[in-house]
Amino acid sequence: MGAGKLAAQVAHAAVTAVEKAKYQNPSWLRAWFETGQAKVVVKVNSEEELNELRKHAESLRLTVVQIQDSGLTQVPFGTTTCIGIGPAPSYLVDKVTRELKLL
Amino acid sequence: MGAGKLAAQVAHAAVTAVEKAKYQNPSWLRAWFETGQAKVVVKVNSEEELNELRKHAESLRLTVVQIQDSGLTQVPFGTTTCIGIGPAPSYLVDKVTRELKLL
Repeated sequence: MGAGKLAAQVAHAAVTAVEKAKYQNPSWLRAWFETGQAKVVVKVNSEEELNELRKHAESLRLTVVQIQDSGLTQVPFGTTTCIGIGPAPSYLVDKVTRELKLL
Repeated sequence: MGAGKLAAQVAHAAVTAVEKAKYQNPSWLRAWFETGQAKVVVKVNSEEELNELRKHAESLRLTVVQIQDSGLTQVPFGTTTCIGIGPAPSYLVDKVTRELKLL
């Protein structure tokens, strides 16, 4: 993916995670909005790794959203391009993501 | 900016624009959510150009958000990294952005 397409996928994840967190974790969402909406973009090496991270995050009851591409341009239909985790306290998100490298 | 930092700035703009549109253009926001949340990431050559685009979008009564970086890492404090325009009908957004290249 080019940088713009990648950014759009991350933005999909951010907006979708915020909407989902309104129902799942409203107090964490509010705290996140009030403290600068931190976002950290990290990378994985495979869709399998992404799935493992998703399961780990779900097991911690974190809000998780999975973004699939409609496949109109750069990737095949239904490809998972990224997941969004949180908003949540950083010590919880770190349990899932701390070994990952910044993109 | 690196690709991850850039993606985080775009995600800030997307989340902030959605929150602002809830008050400014709720019907456009609803239509956007229901039709796939299209996001298009385009680029400019200077902060001056970005400011002109912002004014143009505001003159059309589009929702506009301006993202400034807290300057902890790759750019100086207060640098405007991007703006977000919309959600809005594409024919209106296109009036502002159609000459711009995809990032």
